[in-house]
Amino acid sequence: MRIKLMIEYDGSNFCGWQFQPGLRTVQSELEEAIEKATGEKARVTASGRTDAGVHALGQVAHFDVEKDLGSKYAGALNYYLPPDIRIIKAEKADESFHARFSAKNKTYKYVIYESEVDSALLRKKATKVSGKLNASQMNRVAKAFVGKHDFAAFMSTGSETSTTVRTITDIEVKRKDGFIIISVSADGFLYNMVRKIAAALIKVGKGEMGYDDITQLLDRNATFAPVAPAEGLYLFKVEYKNE
Amino acid sequence: MRIKLMIEYDGSNFCGWQFQPGLRTVQSELEEAIEKATGEKARVTASGRTDAGVHALGQVAHFDVEKDLGSKYAGALNYYLPPDIRIIKAEKADESFHARFSAKNKTYKYVIYESEVDSALLRKKATKVSGKLNASQMNRVAKAFVGKHDFAAFMSTGSETSTTVRTITDIEVKRKDGFIIISVSADGFLYNMVRKIAAALIKVGKGEMGYDDITQLLDRNATFAPVAPAEGLYLFKVEYKNE
Repeated sequence: MRIKLMIEYDGSNFCGWQFQPGLRTVQSELEEAIEKATGEKARVTASGRTDAGVHALGQVAHFDVEKDLGSKYAGALNYYLPPDIRIIKAEKADESFHARFSAKNKTYKYVIYESEVDSALLRKKATKVSGKLNASQMNRVAKAFVGKHDFAAFMSTGSETSTTVRTITDIEVKRKDGFIIISVSADGFLYNMVRKIAAALIKVGKGEMGYDDITQLLDRNATFAPVAPAEGLYLFKVEYKNE
Repeated sequence: MRIKLMIEYDGSNFCGWQFQPGLRTVQSELEEAIEKATGEKARVTASGRTDAGVHALGQVAHFDVEKDLGSKYAGALNYYLPPDIRIIKAEKADESFHARFSAKNKTYKYVIYESEVDSALLRKKATKVSGKLNASQMNRVAKAFVGKHDFAAFMSTGSETSTTVRTITDIEVKRKDGFIIISVSADGFLYNMVRKIAAALIKVGKGEMGYDDITQLLDRNATFAPVAPAEGLYLFKVEYKNE
């Protein structure tokens, strides 16, 4: 029986999603909770890994078990999970459903605040930028990323990928409640792609880069080195076929 | 020389404001940072204590030192302080300024979210309520608290106070970005007064209490037992004469 999970987590105190011996990861905590709830050892597969410090509001994962807890999966797993991981939804899925390979589109949000002083309350939840950013200019230039492009310049080494071509279906930058929020949706993301796009857009907001600088990095054998910090990044949602 | 501080802190990992031997408190961390920055032992006085788990966006405090760091106080203290306490502003104040006794008005905010599942990301930052609250009814009934009243019913024992009369200058309940936020301003607050008012307004939002239930608790020798959790409470600002 295949179970599909929708998961929220606070990435602050995790060494990322993926199992690493001796380290606290989201995957290990989930697999431990599943074993406690069902008595079975299961391998949990996510829509994609997230790095240390990256948060999720709507990560999706699946696992296979024999034990049928009916509608009680979410409650049983939340009972055993630490409070910084919560199952939002758990449901039976078709055997053909695969959290990673069936994913059609993903949306990340990157949250920035402008301040000269670090915030005690936003610590590990948003990225501080000194000085004011021009958010409307960031939004205009962001449109350069939209469409099917070779994003090789916006990838850190370490991607397990055969192609660096991805399609960004939507990107938007807006001010909301004192924050600047970058929302980016694509059919898939390369390693550190969102954080490199965020770093580029922060430079745009400071007037250090423009539209042409972005187009000159796309579809080229180029490298854009800056990577914005993990703490501002949220995996917002994962969309699947037939949804 | 008297220094006035405006302080933000994340109360999650503190046993409240006040010094307690062997425990991590905001006051102890501040006094330690002052000693490191100036070489002097100083006693820090806040506008009022906050309990374990209560946050502050604009706590105000003062202390006296010999050493004149000029405009460098905020930077020097932030250098030695842990990241969950940040000095927003530090400035010289008149010898007659007293963070507690000179305070004219204080504003607290209480932040609620409605969900059947605890949120991993809002953990220790907002209070979860199951089911939907009627926020406009909460706002209407909240007005019963406005004015000069004996708030004895809305105090936990432990208040160091000669009178239980306080004046609420403003109270408002509104929905904002998926949260319900209670803002309450008064010339002073009794121990747990905001958390008891929040608990009463949550009952109002659920239809369990109405306007008359509040007026029957005010100005009476009565007791309202419920106390809303500390984690939703933020000391928002403290106002002083001549500001």
